[in-house]
Amino acid sequence: MLVAFQGEPGAYSEAAALKYSPDTPVLPCPSFEEVFAAVDGGRATHGILPMENSIGGSIHRNYDLLLEHELPIVGEIELRVDHCLLALPGTALADVKVVYSHPQALAQCETALAQMHDVEVVAVYDTAGAAKMVREGARRDAAAVASRRAAEVFALEVLRESIQDYSDNITRFCVISKPPTELAGANKTSIVFALHSKPGALFKALAGFALRDINLTKLESRPLRGRPWEYAFYVDVEVPASHPGCQRALADLAEFSHWVRILGSYASSKS
Amino acid sequence: MLVAFQGEPGAYSEAAALKYSPDTPVLPCPSFEEVFAAVDGGRATHGILPMENSIGGSIHRNYDLLLEHELPIVGEIELRVDHCLLALPGTALADVKVVYSHPQALAQCETALAQMHDVEVVAVYDTAGAAKMVREGARRDAAAVASRRAAEVFALEVLRESIQDYSDNITRFCVISKPPTELAGANKTSIVFALHSKPGALFKALAGFALRDINLTKLESRPLRGRPWEYAFYVDVEVPASHPGCQRALADLAEFSHWVRILGSYASSKS
Repeated sequence: MLVAFQGEPGAYSEAAALKYSPDTPVLPCPSFEEVFAAVDGGRATHGILPMENSIGGSIHRNYDLLLEHELPIVGEIELRVDHCLLALPGTALADVKVVYSHPQALAQCETALAQMHDVEVVAVYDTAGAAKMVREGARRDAAAVASRRAAEVFALEVLRESIQDYSDNITRFCVISKPPTELAGANKTSIVFALHSKPGALFKALAGFALRDINLTKLESRPLRGRPWEYAFYVDVEVPASHPGCQRALADLAEFSHWVRILGSYASSKS
Repeated sequence: MLVAFQGEPGAYSEAAALKYSPDTPVLPCPSFEEVFAAVDGGRATHGILPMENSIGGSIHRNYDLLLEHELPIVGEIELRVDHCLLALPGTALADVKVVYSHPQALAQCETALAQMHDVEVVAVYDTAGAAKMVREGARRDAAAVASRRAAEVFALEVLRESIQDYSDNITRFCVISKPPTELAGANKTSIVFALHSKPGALFKALAGFALRDINLTKLESRPLRGRPWEYAFYVDVEVPASHPGCQRALADLAEFSHWVRILGSYASSKS
C-alpha cells in the first residue's frame, strides 16, 4: 500500500493518509491531478483528497476530478485542522514580520493574524510548503501557518497553536483506489446526478431515498459547465450502494435524472 | 446611491456594481466585513458581494456574513469573468517571469499559465490588487491576471485576453441594502434554514415548494459550526417571498425546520 497525497510532507493531507492507514508509505504530489495520475498509473495504490471543510465548504476541483476519472471512492476520513504559527528556532513572536500560508488557512486564522501588528500576510499554495519556505528562506522574521507535524518535518518551532477562529475546523477526505468490487464494511455512498432546473425535479429525485428512510449527509447543487439551467448534485447517503433499499432508490433516481454516477461505497470514519 | 465593494478599483466586484447601477459612485473596501460595516453604518447605501462562481462554487464567507448581519438582499447580478494577462507597457509576453493574482483566478487560468515557461505564479488577495502591484512594483517582468477594466484603471497593457480554462466562467453577486419593505419587481428569494440530519428531513422541508411548483435554483447543505449533525441549507427560489404559494411553502418549511431566515426577495438579472 502506498498513498498519494497533494502537498509537501507535513501537509494535512499526509496526516489524513496516516490516520487512514498508520505507518503506511506516502507519495507527495504537486497537484490533485497528479494524485489521480499516480493511482491511475499504478505508482500508488491509493490516493487521498480533501473534499469538504466545515468552514470553507466543498473543494469543487476534487469533485470535478472524480467525475473526470473512473477511480472509485473506497474510504473516508475526517481530520481536525489545528493551525499553528511556526518559525525558525530562536525567532520570537514579536520578531515576526511576514506570515506565509495557504489562503484558506490564512482566512481561517484571520482573528489571530489581525492581532499581530505590522505583519505582512502572504498567500502560498500549501501550508506545509509555507513551512518549507520558512525553513529554506533567508528571513529570520518569517513564520508559517501550518500543522504541528509540519513543524517536526521542517524542524521549526511552534510559536502559537490552535490559532484558527473556530475550533471545530474539520476537513473530510476521501480515499480513491482501484478495487474490483464493493468493500466490506461500506456504510456510505457518494452519488452525483444531473437534473434540469424545473419545479419539483429535486424533490422527485430525492423521494426514493426519503420514502425508504435513507439519510442524506450532504447535498449540494452546482451549475453544469456549458449547460445553462442544468445542475449536478453531489449527494452522500448513509448506506452502501448494495443495500436493497438504496438499489431501488438509485433506480428511482435514474428515472428522474439525466445521468447518475456512483462515486463509490465505502466505510466512513469520523473525526 | 453609493455602492461598497471589496477590492481595489478595477475589481470584478466593482464591475458588477457598475453593471447593477451604471455610473453610480462606488466605495472600495479592504474586506467583505468592511462592505457590511459600510452599509450598516450608512457610509454606503448598498453593498455588492460575490456569492457563487460557476467554476469555484459558493463563497461561504459571504453566506456566513449575511446570517451574522440583518441586511437583506435587494438585488442580484451575474457577471461574466474574463481574465486577461496584464503588464507594464513595453513588456512582451516572453519577458514575463512572475504572475500575480487571486488564487481562484490563477486556478481558473491553469492551462494558459502552465504553457508559460519558467514563470513563478504568486497568489495575492485580489485580482485588481495584483494589477496595482504590477503598476507600482519595480519589476518589468511581472504580470497580473485581472480584468480588462483593471488594465485601464492601472494603465497596463493587455498581453493576452480570455485566458481562463472554461469560457463560461460566471460569478453571481448579490446586492445588500437597508430598504423598508419588499422591492417592486422581485422575482427571486434567498432562504437559509437549519435541519437535523435524519431521513426525510430535507424531503419534508422541500415538499411545500415542490407541491406548489415553485422552482429551486440553488440548494446547498453546510455543516453548522459547533453543532455536529445539524445542517444549514441555502436555497434560492424563483418567486418573491410575498407570492401566496411561497408564503404557504415558507410556513410548511418553518414547521419542519429548526429555524428559517429569509435573506431577501429581489429582482434577479442574468448575465
